[in-house]
Amino acid sequence: MNIKPNMSTRKHSNKTGTKRASRQQSGRNPAPPVGDWLYGRHAVLAALNNPGRRCRRLLMTAEVSRSLGDAIRPGPAPETVDRNRLNDLMPGAVHQGIALLADPLPAPDLEQATTPHPDRNNTVLVLDQVSDPHNVGATLRSADAFAARAIVTTDRNAPAATGALAKAASGALERVPVVRVANLAQALDSLGELGYWRIGLAADGDRELAGCRDFGNVALILGAEGKGLRRLTTTKCDLLARIDMPGPMTSLNVSNAAAVALYELSRRP
Amino acid sequence: MNIKPNMSTRKHSNKTGTKRASRQQSGRNPAPPVGDWLYGRHAVLAALNNPGRRCRRLLMTAEVSRSLGDAIRPGPAPETVDRNRLNDLMPGAVHQGIALLADPLPAPDLEQATTPHPDRNNTVLVLDQVSDPHNVGATLRSADAFAARAIVTTDRNAPAATGALAKAASGALERVPVVRVANLAQALDSLGELGYWRIGLAADGDRELAGCRDFGNVALILGAEGKGLRRLTTTKCDLLARIDMPGPMTSLNVSNAAAVALYELSRRP
Repeated sequence: MNIKPNMSTRKHSNKTGTKRASRQQSGRNPAPPVGDWLYGRHAVLAALNNPGRRCRRLLMTAEVSRSLGDAIRPGPAPETVDRNRLNDLMPGAVHQGIALLADPLPAPDLEQATTPHPDRNNTVLVLDQVSDPHNVGATLRSADAFAARAIVTTDRNAPAATGALAKAASGALERVPVVRVANLAQALDSLGELGYWRIGLAADGDRELAGCRDFGNVALILGAEGKGLRRLTTTKCDLLARIDMPGPMTSLNVSNAAAVALYELSRRP
Repeated sequence: MNIKPNMSTRKHSNKTGTKRASRQQSGRNPAPPVGDWLYGRHAVLAALNNPGRRCRRLLMTAEVSRSLGDAIRPGPAPETVDRNRLNDLMPGAVHQGIALLADPLPAPDLEQATTPHPDRNNTVLVLDQVSDPHNVGATLRSADAFAARAIVTTDRNAPAATGALAKAASGALERVPVVRVANLAQALDSLGELGYWRIGLAADGDRELAGCRDFGNVALILGAEGKGLRRLTTTKCDLLARIDMPGPMTSLNVSNAAAVALYELSRRP
Protein backbone atom coordinates (compact mmCIF):
# COMPACT_ATOMS: atom_id res chain seq x y z
CA MET A 1 0.00 0.00 0.00
CA ASN A 2 1.48 3.22 -1.13
CA ILE A 3 -0.70 5.86 0.42
CA LYS A 4 1.25 8.89 1.50
CA PRO A 5 0.46 9.56 5.13
CA ASN A 6 -0.04 13.27 4.56
CA MET A 7 -2.32 12.83 1.60
CA SER A 8 -5.64 12.55 3.30
CA THR A 9 -5.13 14.14 6.66
CA ARG A 10 -5.06 17.74 5.57
CA LYS A 11 -7.55 19.95 7.25
CA HIS A 12 -10.50 21.27 5.33
CA SER A 13 -9.64 24.51 3.60
CA ASN A 14 -12.09 27.26 4.40
CA LYS A 15 -10.75 29.83 2.01
CA THR A 16 -13.81 29.75 -0.17
CA GLY A 17 -16.32 29.17 2.61
CA THR A 18 -19.03 31.44 3.89
CA LYS A 19 -18.32 34.04 6.50
CA ARG A 20 -16.63 32.42 9.47
CA ALA A 21 -17.32 33.25 13.06
CA SER A 22 -15.03 36.19 13.62
CA ARG A 23 -12.65 36.05 16.54
CA GLN A 24 -13.24 38.65 19.17
CA GLN A 25 -10.67 41.41 19.23
CA SER A 26 -10.25 41.68 22.99
CA GLY A 27 -7.41 39.68 24.46
CA ARG A 28 -9.14 39.43 27.82
CA ASN A 29 -12.03 37.28 26.64
CA PRO A 30 -11.52 33.62 25.93
CA ALA A 31 -11.43 32.82 22.22
CA PRO A 32 -15.00 32.29 21.05
CA PRO A 33 -15.96 29.09 19.32
CA VAL A 34 -15.03 28.97 15.68
CA GLY A 35 -16.63 26.94 12.95
CA ASP A 36 -18.53 27.33 9.71
CA TRP A 37 -22.12 28.26 9.05
CA LEU A 38 -24.31 25.60 7.55
CA TYR A 39 -27.77 26.65 6.43
CA GLY A 40 -30.90 25.25 4.88
CA ARG A 41 -33.34 22.90 6.55
CA HIS A 42 -32.06 19.53 5.34
CA ALA A 43 -28.39 20.44 5.76
CA VAL A 44 -28.85 21.72 9.31
CA LEU A 45 -31.11 18.91 10.52
CA ALA A 46 -28.75 16.29 9.12
CA ALA A 47 -25.79 17.94 10.87
CA LEU A 48 -27.67 18.08 14.18
CA ASN A 49 -28.44 14.38 13.83
CA ASN A 50 -24.84 13.48 13.06
CA PRO A 51 -23.11 12.35 16.27
CA GLY A 52 -19.77 13.03 14.59
CA ARG A 53 -20.55 16.71 14.09
CA ARG A 54 -19.75 19.24 16.80
CA CYS A 55 -22.49 21.85 16.69
CA ARG A 56 -22.01 25.19 18.43
CA ARG A 57 -24.86 27.56 17.71
CA LEU A 58 -28.30 27.07 16.19
CA LEU A 59 -30.14 30.10 14.82
CA MET A 60 -33.63 30.06 13.39
CA THR A 61 -36.57 32.31 12.77
CA ALA A 62 -39.66 32.00 14.97
CA GLU A 63 -41.56 30.64 11.98
CA VAL A 64 -39.04 27.86 11.36
CA SER A 65 -38.95 27.10 15.08
CA ARG A 66 -42.72 26.57 15.08
CA SER A 67 -42.69 24.42 11.95
CA LEU A 68 -39.86 22.17 13.10
CA GLY A 69 -41.39 21.27 16.42
CA ASP A 70 -39.80 18.07 17.71
CA ALA A 71 -37.58 17.53 14.67
CA ILE A 72 -34.67 19.13 16.48
CA ARG A 73 -32.48 16.71 18.35
CA PRO A 74 -30.37 17.60 21.38
CA GLY A 75 -27.75 20.09 20.44
CA PRO A 76 -27.15 23.77 21.09
CA ALA A 77 -30.23 25.56 22.40
CA PRO A 78 -31.97 27.22 19.43
CA GLU A 79 -31.71 31.01 19.32
CA THR A 80 -34.67 32.71 17.72
CA VAL A 81 -33.50 35.44 15.38
CA ASP A 82 -34.89 37.78 12.80
CA ARG A 83 -34.58 36.75 9.14
CA ASN A 84 -32.53 39.89 8.51
CA ARG A 85 -29.96 38.72 11.04
CA LEU A 86 -29.44 35.58 8.96
CA ASN A 87 -29.29 37.64 5.76
CA ASP A 88 -26.53 39.73 7.33
CA LEU A 89 -24.60 36.72 8.61
CA MET A 90 -24.58 34.94 5.25
CA PRO A 91 -25.20 37.41 2.44
CA GLY A 92 -26.93 35.97 -0.60
CA ALA A 93 -27.43 32.55 0.95
CA VAL A 94 -30.72 30.66 0.56
CA HIS A 95 -30.77 29.91 4.29
CA GLN A 96 -34.47 29.01 4.64
CA GLY A 97 -34.54 30.68 8.03
CA ILE A 98 -32.16 28.29 9.76
CA ALA A 99 -28.41 28.24 10.30
CA LEU A 100 -25.97 26.18 12.34
CA LEU A 101 -22.47 27.06 13.41
CA ALA A 102 -20.57 23.79 13.41
CA ASP A 103 -17.03 22.51 13.34
CA PRO A 104 -15.89 20.89 10.11
CA LEU A 105 -16.17 17.11 10.09
CA PRO A 106 -12.93 15.26 10.77
CA ALA A 107 -10.99 14.85 7.51
CA PRO A 108 -11.54 11.26 6.36
CA ASP A 109 -8.62 9.06 5.38
CA LEU A 110 -8.57 7.93 1.74
CA GLU A 111 -7.86 4.27 2.43
CA GLN A 112 -10.31 4.03 5.30
CA ALA A 113 -13.09 5.70 3.32
CA THR A 114 -12.62 3.68 0.16
CA THR A 115 -11.34 0.18 1.02
CA PRO A 116 -13.81 -1.91 -0.96
CA HIS A 117 -16.54 -3.83 0.79
CA PRO A 118 -15.96 -7.38 -0.46
CA ASP A 119 -19.65 -8.26 -0.78
CA ARG A 120 -20.58 -5.72 -3.43
CA ASN A 121 -19.37 -3.49 -6.24
CA ASN A 122 -18.00 -0.26 -4.82
CA THR A 123 -18.09 3.14 -6.47
CA VAL A 124 -15.93 6.14 -5.61
CA LEU A 125 -16.38 9.50 -7.31
CA VAL A 126 -13.28 11.58 -8.01
CA LEU A 127 -13.67 15.28 -8.85
CA ASP A 128 -10.69 16.87 -10.59
CA GLN A 129 -10.87 20.54 -9.58
CA VAL A 130 -14.63 20.89 -9.81
CA SER A 131 -15.01 24.29 -8.21
CA ASP A 132 -18.66 25.30 -8.07
CA PRO A 133 -20.10 24.57 -4.59
CA HIS A 134 -23.62 23.99 -5.95
CA ASN A 135 -22.29 21.42 -8.40
CA VAL A 136 -20.20 19.65 -5.77
CA GLY A 137 -23.11 19.72 -3.32
CA ALA A 138 -25.60 18.31 -5.84
CA THR A 139 -23.04 15.65 -6.76
CA LEU A 140 -22.66 14.72 -3.11
CA ARG A 141 -26.42 14.31 -2.89
CA SER A 142 -26.42 12.01 -5.94
CA ALA A 143 -23.47 10.08 -4.51
CA ASP A 144 -25.53 9.48 -1.37
CA ALA A 145 -28.60 8.47 -3.41
CA PHE A 146 -26.65 5.96 -5.51
CA ALA A 147 -24.66 4.65 -2.53
CA ALA A 148 -21.20 5.76 -3.64
CA ARG A 149 -18.56 5.10 -0.99
CA ALA A 150 -16.87 8.51 -1.00
CA ILE A 151 -16.04 11.58 -3.02
CA VAL A 152 -12.39 12.39 -3.54
CA THR A 153 -11.57 16.00 -4.44
CA THR A 154 -8.48 18.06 -4.92
CA ASP A 155 -7.52 20.15 -1.94
CA ARG A 156 -7.03 23.19 -4.14
CA ASN A 157 -9.59 24.57 -6.59
CA ALA A 158 -12.39 22.82 -4.76
CA PRO A 159 -15.03 24.45 -2.56
CA ALA A 160 -15.09 24.16 1.23
CA ALA A 161 -17.52 21.64 2.68
CA THR A 162 -19.85 24.24 4.14
CA GLY A 163 -22.46 26.85 3.20
CA ALA A 164 -23.70 26.55 -0.37
CA LEU A 165 -22.12 23.12 -0.85
CA ALA A 166 -23.77 21.72 2.28
CA LYS A 167 -27.12 23.27 1.33
CA ALA A 168 -27.02 21.71 -2.15
CA ALA A 169 -25.96 18.38 -0.64
CA SER A 170 -29.22 18.41 1.34
CA GLY A 171 -27.78 16.39 4.23
CA ALA A 172 -25.49 14.11 2.21
CA LEU A 173 -22.43 15.90 3.57
CA GLU A 174 -23.04 14.13 6.90
CA ARG A 175 -23.03 10.69 5.29
CA VAL A 176 -20.71 10.62 2.27
CA PRO A 177 -17.03 11.03 3.19
CA VAL A 178 -15.36 13.86 1.28
CA VAL A 179 -11.66 13.05 1.04
CA ARG A 180 -9.52 16.05 0.08
CA VAL A 181 -6.13 15.19 -1.33
CA ALA A 182 -3.13 17.35 -2.12
CA ASN A 183 -2.07 15.13 -5.01
CA LEU A 184 -4.84 13.63 -7.10
CA ALA A 185 -2.48 11.54 -9.24
CA GLN A 186 -1.16 9.83 -6.09
CA ALA A 187 -4.71 9.27 -4.87
CA LEU A 188 -5.56 7.59 -8.19
CA ASP A 189 -2.52 5.35 -7.75
CA SER A 190 -3.81 4.41 -4.32
CA LEU A 191 -7.32 3.71 -5.60
CA GLY A 192 -5.81 1.43 -8.24
CA GLU A 193 -3.92 -0.46 -5.55
CA LEU A 194 -7.13 -0.77 -3.56
CA GLY A 195 -8.70 -2.57 -6.50
CA TYR A 196 -10.60 0.14 -8.29
CA TRP A 197 -10.85 0.50 -12.05
CA ARG A 198 -10.16 4.15 -12.69
CA ILE A 199 -12.62 5.28 -15.34
CA GLY A 200 -12.37 8.87 -16.55
CA LEU A 201 -15.47 10.43 -18.02
CA ALA A 202 -14.73 12.21 -21.30
CA ALA A 203 -16.79 13.20 -24.35
CA ASP A 204 -14.35 11.30 -26.59
CA GLY A 205 -14.10 8.27 -24.32
CA ASP A 206 -13.21 4.94 -25.97
CA ARG A 207 -16.11 3.04 -24.54
CA GLU A 208 -19.66 3.81 -23.60
CA LEU A 209 -20.14 3.92 -19.84
CA ALA A 210 -23.15 1.60 -20.20
CA GLY A 211 -20.68 -0.97 -21.55
CA CYS A 212 -18.72 -0.94 -18.29
CA ARG A 213 -21.13 -3.05 -16.23
CA ASP A 214 -18.63 -5.89 -15.97
CA PHE A 215 -16.18 -3.77 -14.06
CA GLY A 216 -16.27 -4.43 -10.35
CA ASN A 217 -15.07 -1.59 -8.20
CA VAL A 218 -15.01 1.70 -10.09
CA ALA A 219 -13.44 5.04 -9.30
CA LEU A 220 -15.20 7.41 -11.68
CA ILE A 221 -13.26 10.57 -12.44
CA LEU A 222 -14.90 13.79 -13.60
CA GLY A 223 -13.14 16.93 -14.76
CA ALA A 224 -13.82 20.56 -14.01
CA GLU A 225 -16.59 22.64 -15.56
CA GLY A 226 -15.42 23.67 -19.04
CA LYS A 227 -11.90 22.30 -18.72
CA GLY A 228 -12.49 18.59 -18.29
CA LEU A 229 -9.89 16.17 -16.99
CA ARG A 230 -6.32 17.42 -16.62
CA ARG A 231 -3.72 15.65 -18.72
CA LEU A 232 -1.96 14.05 -15.76
CA THR A 233 -5.30 12.84 -14.42
CA THR A 234 -6.08 11.26 -17.79
CA THR A 235 -2.82 9.33 -17.79
CA LYS A 236 -3.81 7.78 -14.46
CA CYS A 237 -7.10 6.43 -15.83
CA ASP A 238 -7.36 2.77 -16.85
CA LEU A 239 -9.87 3.80 -19.49
CA LEU A 240 -11.93 6.75 -20.65
CA ALA A 241 -15.66 6.28 -20.97
CA ARG A 242 -18.35 8.46 -22.47
CA ILE A 243 -22.04 8.99 -21.96
CA ASP A 244 -23.71 8.64 -25.34
CA MET A 245 -25.82 11.68 -26.09
CA PRO A 246 -27.87 11.68 -29.28
CA GLY A 247 -28.54 15.46 -29.31
CA PRO A 248 -26.43 18.40 -30.48
CA MET A 249 -25.11 19.33 -27.00
CA THR A 250 -21.91 17.42 -26.38
CA SER A 251 -21.48 17.93 -22.64
CA LEU A 252 -23.59 18.10 -19.51
CA ASN A 253 -23.44 20.23 -16.41
CA VAL A 254 -20.89 18.42 -14.24
CA SER A 255 -23.35 17.48 -11.49
CA ASN A 256 -25.77 16.19 -14.12
CA ALA A 257 -22.99 14.14 -15.70
CA ALA A 258 -22.10 12.75 -12.27
CA ALA A 259 -25.72 11.83 -11.59
CA VAL A 260 -26.09 10.03 -14.92
CA ALA A 261 -22.81 8.19 -14.42
CA LEU A 262 -23.65 7.18 -10.84
CA TYR A 263 -27.05 5.97 -12.01
CA GLU A 264 -25.48 3.93 -14.79
CA LEU A 265 -22.91 2.44 -12.41
CA SER A 266 -25.65 1.61 -9.90
CA ARG A 267 -27.18 -0.65 -12.59
CA ARG A 268 -24.22 -3.03 -12.30
CA PRO A 269 -25.44 -6.45 -11.25
CA MET B 1 -57.26 18.68 -30.93
CA ASN B 2 -58.08 20.57 -27.80
CA ILE B 3 -55.24 23.05 -27.48
CA LYS B 4 -56.41 26.38 -26.18
CA PRO B 5 -55.20 29.05 -28.55
CA ASN B 6 -53.97 31.28 -25.77
CA MET B 7 -52.08 28.52 -23.99
CA SER B 8 -48.76 28.74 -25.68
CA THR B 9 -48.67 32.20 -27.16
CA ARG B 10 -48.07 34.14 -23.98
CA LYS B 11 -45.03 36.31 -23.98
CA HIS B 12 -42.05 35.35 -21.88
CA SER B 13 -42.34 36.77 -18.40
CA ASN B 14 -39.34 38.79 -17.42
CA LYS B 15 -40.28 39.32 -13.81
CA THR B 16 -37.48 37.20 -12.52
CA GLY B 17 -34.95 38.07 -15.21
CA THR B 18 -31.74 39.98 -14.87
CA LYS B 19 -31.65 43.71 -15.06
CA ARG B 20 -33.36 44.87 -18.24
CA ALA B 21 -32.12 47.69 -20.42
CA SER B 22 -33.51 50.71 -18.65
CA ARG B 23 -35.51 53.14 -20.67
CA GLN B 24 -34.01 56.55 -20.95
CA GLN B 25 -35.72 59.15 -18.86
CA SER B 26 -35.77 61.96 -21.39
CA GLY B 27 -38.92 62.17 -23.50
CA ARG B 28 -37.00 63.79 -26.34
CA ASN B 29 -34.90 60.78 -27.19
CA PRO B 30 -36.37 57.85 -29.07
CA ALA B 31 -37.03 54.80 -26.90
CA PRO B 32 -33.83 52.74 -26.77
CA PRO B 33 -33.93 49.08 -27.72
CA VAL B 34 -35.27 46.81 -25.02
CA GLY B 35 -34.39 43.19 -24.43
CA ASP B 36 -32.76 40.94 -21.90
CA TRP B 37 -29.12 40.42 -21.08
CA LEU B 38 -27.65 37.07 -21.86
CA TYR B 39 -24.15 36.37 -20.60
CA GLY B 40 -21.51 33.69 -20.55
CA ARG B 41 -19.50 32.57 -23.53
CA HIS B 42 -21.54 29.58 -24.72
CA ALA B 43 -24.90 31.28 -24.17
CA VAL B 44 -23.89 34.44 -26.05
CA LEU B 45 -22.17 32.70 -28.97
CA ALA B 46 -25.15 30.37 -29.45
CA ALA B 47 -27.54 33.34 -29.44
CA LEU B 48 -25.41 35.19 -32.00
CA ASN B 49 -25.46 32.11 -34.21
CA ASN B 50 -29.23 31.71 -33.94
CA PRO B 51 -30.89 33.34 -36.95
CA GLY B 52 -34.15 33.45 -34.99
CA ARG B 53 -32.66 35.66 -32.28
CA ARG B 54 -32.69 39.43 -32.62
CA CYS B 55 -29.48 40.68 -31.03
CA ARG B 56 -29.12 44.34 -30.14
CA ARG B 57 -25.88 45.01 -28.27
CA LEU B 58 -22.77 42.93 -27.69
CA LEU B 59 -20.44 43.87 -24.85
CA MET B 60 -17.16 42.17 -24.07
CA THR B 61 -13.88 42.79 -22.35
CA ALA B 62 -10.75 43.34 -24.44
CA GLU B 63 -9.43 39.99 -23.21
CA VAL B 64 -12.51 38.10 -24.38
CA SER B 65 -12.46 40.00 -27.66
CA ARG B 66 -8.89 38.82 -28.30
CA SER B 67 -9.61 35.21 -27.33
CA LEU B 68 -12.75 34.92 -29.46
CA GLY B 69 -11.17 36.09 -32.69
CA ASP B 70 -13.30 34.92 -35.60
CA ALA B 71 -15.82 33.02 -33.48
CA ILE B 72 -18.16 36.00 -33.58
CA ARG B 73 -20.66 35.95 -36.42
CA PRO B 74 -22.27 39.01 -37.96
CA GLY B 75 -24.43 40.77 -35.44
CA PRO B 76 -24.18 43.96 -33.46
CA ALA B 77 -20.69 45.46 -33.52
CA PRO B 78 -18.89 44.37 -30.35
CA GLU B 79 -18.37 47.13 -27.78
CA THR B 80 -15.25 46.70 -25.69
CA VAL B 81 -16.01 47.40 -22.04
CA ASP B 82 -14.36 47.15 -18.68
CA ARG B 83 -15.16 44.08 -16.57
CA ASN B 84 -16.58 46.38 -13.89
CA ARG B 85 -19.12 47.72 -16.35
CA LEU B 86 -20.44 44.18 -16.79
CA ASN B 87 -20.40 43.63 -13.03
CA ASP B 88 -22.53 46.74 -12.62
CA LEU B 89 -24.94 45.79 -15.40
CA MET B 90 -25.61 42.32 -14.03
CA PRO B 91 -24.71 42.14 -10.35
CA GLY B 92 -23.58 38.74 -9.12
CA ALA B 93 -23.67 37.17 -12.57
CA VAL B 94 -20.90 34.86 -13.78
CA HIS B 95 -20.71 36.75 -17.06
CA GLN B 96 -17.29 35.52 -18.20
CA GLY B 97 -16.57 38.95 -19.67
CA ILE B 98 -19.24 38.82 -22.37
CA ALA B 99 -22.88 39.93 -22.52
CA LEU B 100 -25.51 40.26 -25.21
CA LEU B 101 -28.67 42.33 -25.17
CA ALA B 102 -31.21 40.35 -27.16
CA ASP B 103 -34.93 40.10 -27.66
CA PRO B 104 -36.66 37.06 -26.20
CA LEU B 105 -37.16 34.23 -28.64
CA PRO B 106 -40.65 33.98 -30.14
CA ALA B 107 -42.88 31.96 -27.79
CA PRO B 108 -43.18 28.48 -29.30
CA ASP B 109 -46.55 26.84 -29.76
CA LEU B 110 -47.13 23.64 -27.76
CA GLU B 111 -48.53 21.58 -30.60
CA GLN B 112 -45.97 22.78 -33.10
CA ALA B 113 -43.07 22.12 -30.75
CA THR B 114 -44.19 18.67 -29.64
CA THR B 115 -46.10 16.96 -32.47
CA PRO B 116 -44.27 13.62 -32.53
CA HIS B 117 -41.85 12.80 -35.32
CA PRO B 118 -43.26 9.51 -36.63
CA ASP B 119 -39.86 7.90 -37.26
CA ARG B 120 -38.62 7.84 -33.68
CA ASN B 121 -39.58 7.87 -30.02
CA ASN B 122 -40.13 11.45 -28.88
CA THR B 123 -39.47 12.83 -25.42
CA VAL B 124 -40.88 16.03 -23.94
CA LEU B 125 -39.90 17.28 -20.51
CA VAL B 126 -42.53 19.00 -18.38
CA LEU B 127 -41.46 21.06 -15.37
CA ASP B 128 -44.16 21.69 -12.78
CA GLN B 129 -43.14 25.00 -11.18
CA VAL B 130 -39.42 24.32 -11.06
CA SER B 131 -38.23 27.77 -10.08
CA ASP B 132 -34.45 27.84 -9.82
CA PRO B 133 -32.93 29.28 -13.03
CA HIS B 134 -29.72 27.22 -12.65
CA ASN B 135 -31.75 24.03 -12.37
CA VAL B 136 -33.95 24.88 -15.35
CA GLY B 137 -30.90 25.93 -17.38
CA ALA B 138 -28.96 22.76 -16.60
CA THR B 139 -32.07 20.74 -17.43
CA LEU B 140 -32.36 22.51 -20.77
CA ARG B 141 -28.74 21.58 -21.47
CA SER B 142 -29.46 17.92 -20.68
CA ALA B 143 -32.63 18.04 -22.79
CA ASP B 144 -30.51 19.24 -25.71
CA ALA B 145 -27.89 16.55 -25.07
CA PHE B 146 -30.46 13.76 -24.96
CA ALA B 147 -32.44 15.13 -27.92
CA ALA B 148 -35.67 15.94 -26.10
CA ARG B 149 -38.17 17.74 -28.32
CA ALA B 150 -39.12 20.56 -25.95
CA ILE B 151 -39.46 21.66 -22.37
CA VAL B 152 -42.90 22.68 -21.15
CA THR B 153 -43.01 24.88 -18.06
CA THR B 154 -45.64 26.72 -16.13
CA ASP B 155 -45.91 30.40 -16.95
CA ARG B 156 -45.93 31.28 -13.25
CA ASN B 157 -43.34 30.15 -10.71
CA ALA B 158 -40.82 29.49 -13.45
CA PRO B 159 -37.74 31.56 -14.23
CA ALA B 160 -37.45 33.81 -17.30
CA ALA B 161 -35.50 32.40 -20.22
CA THR B 162 -32.56 34.76 -19.81
CA GLY B 163 -29.55 35.53 -17.59
CA ALA B 164 -28.68 32.71 -15.20
CA LEU B 165 -30.96 30.21 -16.94
CA ALA B 166 -29.40 30.90 -20.36
CA LYS B 167 -25.89 30.72 -18.89
CA ALA B 168 -26.59 27.34 -17.27
CA ALA B 169 -28.19 26.10 -20.49
CA SER B 170 -24.86 26.75 -22.22
CA GLY B 171 -26.45 27.46 -25.62
CA ALA B 172 -29.31 24.95 -25.41
CA LEU B 173 -31.83 27.78 -25.02
CA GLU B 174 -31.33 28.55 -28.71
CA ARG B 175 -32.16 24.98 -29.74
CA VAL B 176 -34.69 23.44 -27.35
CA PRO B 177 -38.11 25.11 -27.49
CA VAL B 178 -39.32 26.27 -24.07
CA VAL B 179 -43.11 26.30 -24.12
CA ARG B 180 -44.66 28.30 -21.28
CA VAL B 181 -48.25 27.44 -20.51
CA ALA B 182 -50.79 29.14 -18.30
CA ASN B 183 -52.50 25.87 -17.46
CA LEU B 184 -50.27 22.82 -17.07
CA ALA B 185 -53.18 20.40 -16.65
CA GLN B 186 -54.57 21.45 -20.03
CA ALA B 187 -51.13 21.12 -21.60
CA LEU B 188 -50.91 17.56 -20.25
CA ASP B 189 -54.31 16.82 -21.81
CA SER B 190 -52.98 18.11 -25.11
CA LEU B 191 -49.80 16.04 -24.87
CA GLY B 192 -51.94 12.97 -24.24
CA GLU B 193 -53.97 13.74 -27.36
CA LEU B 194 -50.76 14.15 -29.33
CA GLY B 195 -49.83 10.59 -28.40
CA TYR B 196 -47.53 11.01 -25.41
CA TRP B 197 -47.50 8.78 -22.38
CA ARG B 198 -47.48 11.17 -19.45
CA ILE B 199 -45.05 9.76 -16.91
CA GLY B 200 -44.65 11.63 -13.64
CA LEU B 201 -41.41 11.18 -11.74
CA ALA B 202 -42.01 10.48 -8.05
CA ALA B 203 -40.05 8.80 -5.28
CA ASP B 204 -42.99 6.46 -4.63
CA GLY B 205 -43.69 5.77 -8.30
CA ASP B 206 -45.36 2.45 -9.14
CA ARG B 207 -42.83 1.39 -11.69
CA GLU B 208 -39.13 1.81 -12.17
CA LEU B 209 -38.35 4.26 -14.99
CA ALA B 210 -35.92 1.71 -16.45
CA GLY B 211 -38.96 -0.53 -16.90
CA CYS B 212 -40.61 2.01 -19.20
CA ARG B 213 -38.53 1.30 -22.31
CA ASP B 214 -41.54 -0.07 -24.19
CA PHE B 215 -43.34 3.23 -24.04
CA GLY B 216 -43.11 5.15 -27.28
CA ASN B 217 -43.53 8.89 -26.96
CA VAL B 218 -43.05 10.06 -23.39
CA ALA B 219 -43.83 13.35 -21.69
CA LEU B 220 -41.81 13.15 -18.49
CA ILE B 221 -43.11 15.37 -15.70
CA LEU B 222 -40.92 16.62 -12.85
CA GLY B 223 -42.09 18.53 -9.79
CA ALA B 224 -40.61 21.51 -8.04
CA GLU B 225 -37.62 21.44 -5.73
CA GLY B 226 -38.79 20.19 -2.34
CA LYS B 227 -42.49 20.09 -3.20
CA GLY B 228 -42.64 17.57 -6.00
CA LEU B 229 -45.59 17.19 -8.35
CA ARG B 230 -48.78 19.06 -7.54
CA ARG B 231 -51.86 16.93 -6.92
CA LEU B 232 -53.67 18.05 -10.04
CA THR B 233 -50.56 17.36 -12.11
CA THR B 234 -50.37 13.85 -10.66
CA THR B 235 -53.96 13.11 -11.65
CA LYS B 236 -53.06 13.96 -15.25
CA CYS B 237 -50.23 11.40 -15.37
CA ASP B 238 -50.80 8.02 -17.00
CA LEU B 239 -48.36 6.54 -14.54
CA LEU B 240 -45.83 7.50 -11.89
CA ALA B 241 -42.31 6.18 -12.25
CA ARG B 242 -39.35 6.22 -9.90
CA ILE B 243 -35.60 6.19 -10.23
CA ASP B 244 -34.32 3.39 -8.03
CA MET B 245 -31.69 4.69 -5.64
CA PRO B 246 -29.94 2.21 -3.38
CA GLY B 247 -28.52 4.81 -0.96
CA PRO B 248 -30.04 6.63 2.00
CA MET B 249 -30.87 9.83 0.08
CA THR B 250 -34.34 9.50 -1.39
CA SER B 251 -34.35 12.40 -3.84
CA LEU B 252 -32.02 14.12 -6.25
CA ASN B 253 -31.49 17.72 -7.20
CA VAL B 254 -34.19 18.34 -9.80
CA SER B 255 -31.76 18.94 -12.68
CA ASN B 256 -29.87 15.78 -11.72
CA ALA B 257 -33.14 13.83 -11.66
CA ALA B 258 -34.03 15.23 -15.08
CA ALA B 259 -30.62 14.26 -16.48
CA VAL B 260 -30.90 10.69 -15.17
CA ALA B 261 -34.45 10.34 -16.49
CA LEU B 262 -33.56 11.77 -19.92
CA TYR B 263 -30.58 9.43 -20.06
CA GLU B 264 -32.74 6.45 -19.19
CA LEU B 265 -35.38 7.43 -21.77
CA SER B 266 -32.67 7.90 -24.41
CA ARG B 267 -31.88 4.18 -23.99
CA ARG B 268 -35.21 3.26 -25.53
CA PRO B 269 -34.64 1.19 -28.64
